Amino acid sequence: AITTWYPTLTKPSFNPPNWIFAPVWSMLYIMMGIAAGLVWDRIDFEKEIVKKALLFFAIQLALNALWSYLFFGLKNPMLAGLEIIILWLMIYETYIQFAKINKISGYLFIPYLLWVSFATVLNGSIWWLNR
Amino acid sequence: AITTWYPTLTKPSFNPPNWIFAPVWSMLYIMMGIAAGLVWDRIDFEKEIVKKALLFFAIQLALNALWSYLFFGLKNPMLAGLEIIILWLMIYETYIQFAKINKISGYLFIPYLLWVSFATVLNGSIWWLNR
Repeated sequence: AITTWYPTLTKPSFNPPNWIFAPVWSMLYIMMGIAAGLVWDRIDFEKEIVKKALLFFAIQLALNALWSYLFFGLKNPMLAGLEIIILWLMIYETYIQFAKINKISGYLFIPYLLWVSFATVLNGSIWWLNR
Repeated sequence: AITTWYPTLTKPSFNPPNWIFAPVWSMLYIMMGIAAGLVWDRIDFEKEIVKKALLFFAIQLALNALWSYLFFGLKNPMLAGLEIIILWLMIYETYIQFAKINKISGYLFIPYLLWVSFATVLNGSIWWLNR
């Protein structure tokens, strides 16, 4: 669907070039991984708070995967657009939990939060333009 | 090029479906990020060895990005195929360094090493079939 259906959709004027997405997501995944690794390393010292933070991390990661399935798999930008709002909230909650445990982990989540904010606007626009 | 040039290439029989690549790379980037985060957290205790390991991590990451540029940007599977061998060696070296510092970090690199082994064969086959 990325190679067939997606190129046929009408995009808003601020839609970035397609090649941007792969390197941006690669960097974001590495940064969120490093953030999670730094948090994980504190598990012997603050077991409950770290477990809670990693649970939020797992939830946001599952929602992130689900978004791709809803958008590209089901080709349903409306459903994906509703789900991405929940995803954003879970990323924000993970950010709050991570920042409490390790300042750097918090910082590493900020680009992700900003990108998903942008992706939310983009998803909404694509739904609107192709409704 | 991912949406235009790549679909036109002849693929070997073992070429996986296209939708596999995004979730696989997402997981691999998160795992390598966690591995790097766990290693980074040891910097106060083993400064030199951690700095060396993270340098190898940065090199393999740059080579990973370069591979995408050579293959998809320059549309040069032969050059990409030569470069991916160097990438594989640098991932292996990072794996060795990481495993010395944190056993889990080593384990987290194994799926990455296996996938790039497979990608090397795939890259070589695509070059051969489209030479």
